[in-house]
Amino acid sequence: MRTIKDLQEMHSYSMKMKRRGKSIGLVPTMGYLHEGHLSLVEAARKKADLVVVSIFVNPAQFGPGEDFSRYPRDLKRDRKLLNNFEVDVLFLPDAPKMFSGEHQSYVEVEGLSQKMCGRSRPTHFRGVTTVVAKLLNLVSPDYAFFGEKDFQQLLIIKKMVKELNFPVEIIALPTVREFDGLALSSRNQYLNPKQRKAAAVLYQALCLAKKEIENGERNPHKIIAQMRSLLSAAPGVRLDYLVLADPETLIELKKIKRKVLVALAADVGPARLIDNLLVEAK
Amino acid sequence: MRTIKDLQEMHSYSMKMKRRGKSIGLVPTMGYLHEGHLSLVEAARKKADLVVVSIFVNPAQFGPGEDFSRYPRDLKRDRKLLNNFEVDVLFLPDAPKMFSGEHQSYVEVEGLSQKMCGRSRPTHFRGVTTVVAKLLNLVSPDYAFFGEKDFQQLLIIKKMVKELNFPVEIIALPTVREFDGLALSSRNQYLNPKQRKAAAVLYQALCLAKKEIENGERNPHKIIAQMRSLLSAAPGVRLDYLVLADPETLIELKKIKRKVLVALAADVGPARLIDNLLVEAK
Repeated sequence: MRTIKDLQEMHSYSMKMKRRGKSIGLVPTMGYLHEGHLSLVEAARKKADLVVVSIFVNPAQFGPGEDFSRYPRDLKRDRKLLNNFEVDVLFLPDAPKMFSGEHQSYVEVEGLSQKMCGRSRPTHFRGVTTVVAKLLNLVSPDYAFFGEKDFQQLLIIKKMVKELNFPVEIIALPTVREFDGLALSSRNQYLNPKQRKAAAVLYQALCLAKKEIENGERNPHKIIAQMRSLLSAAPGVRLDYLVLADPETLIELKKIKRKVLVALAADVGPARLIDNLLVEAK
Repeated sequence: MRTIKDLQEMHSYSMKMKRRGKSIGLVPTMGYLHEGHLSLVEAARKKADLVVVSIFVNPAQFGPGEDFSRYPRDLKRDRKLLNNFEVDVLFLPDAPKMFSGEHQSYVEVEGLSQKMCGRSRPTHFRGVTTVVAKLLNLVSPDYAFFGEKDFQQLLIIKKMVKELNFPVEIIALPTVREFDGLALSSRNQYLNPKQRKAAAVLYQALCLAKKEIENGERNPHKIIAQMRSLLSAAPGVRLDYLVLADPETLIELKKIKRKVLVALAADVGPARLIDNLLVEAK
């Protein structure tokens, strides 16, 4: 596994490999890797000739007062985990070079970026799309891999790629979960044992919605009320949002038809956690 | 000269050529070509193995009430002009595919886009950077060519390319002028003979500023006053803005030092014209 930090070197490497006819798969991460990330690496390994994993804790996607400075970082641990896979390049873009002091260029997907997480994190998705655009330009991958756990992010990136014609295919992988259903997240690290236990309620609430929809409930408000009641019983869980929405537009549903995105965000102790489930109303 | 309209075909062509080790030069235009555009084509021909000229009247860079619908279009004439050069591909992107009804993805360079032309055309540069990002992604050029006549546009595109790491080199060519100094523009076409004659005052005003600066005048207000007086004497010329600014930040100068961008925009009859001169204070 070769490590590249210099942006120009990353670009030159990719160009050289593309001239040799090699396809490139990019797995963009913020590090502190877990099985969710590793499932993306595995998929990239199967799909592409060369696998590039980037680790960059992107300041542009954190708002003021958010957890940028305490976001978990452990490069030694990440390297060890990646050594079990055949990763060709570990790309560690040089932070000061990525966003210089007078950075003013942004990529934004309007509409979708204002909903759900965008309400409490108004500049978050602009930071995500901007850094992903930068990584796509630096690495020129044929495929880029993202997890469905960040469903809204995935949707926004797909729309950006389509509407700005980035020459890359976005590949989504299912959320990886703990034994009790908690979605893997680097932020789970913030939870103490009590909070960790309580956090399982997020997935339980999603499963409750799934069951209700599958049992024929078509009124989103009734489902949301049940979910809220379940969530409010869990100690230290403060709900941010909870929606049953159209999985393409993220517009909240008045009546359930066909596919439904059930999505939520909650603060559990010091961790802001998100999760979602895509449910088919049969 | 091969014509490509399909976006996917353009991308595939570029990828094929890049695998063969060919470099690509892109000249993005809105058509109704003049000697200014042709100087870009000529420069591209010298620099790159393959030359792609795009013609696309970009709706995203026109505001409401602007001249999108009456912007001059004459593909037959453009083809004839391009036939005198060895252009490899004429890229005519399919308009409905470029911006679909629900288009929400934009690239924006904040700050620079709000100054000068951005004041009277608040969404103009966002439209420009978005379409240029799209063209860069579709064509994957090694070089892209722009005229210095659109100085602010050039500056914004350079900043976008640098800050979003687009793998392309931006090459700027000097403004091409008529016998009386009027900068070539597809919009000169809108002028009747009287307006055409009056329009020469724009360049005369720029030259006046240059002379004053070279003669040691360091107070921008005095120069602007002289320019305004000259411009106001020309029939049918309504000034939009007139600035002496820093050529990197576009911030208006309080005192003249080193390099000065002298730039203006004016309505001359039905045409909004812009021009600029970069002056070195010796």
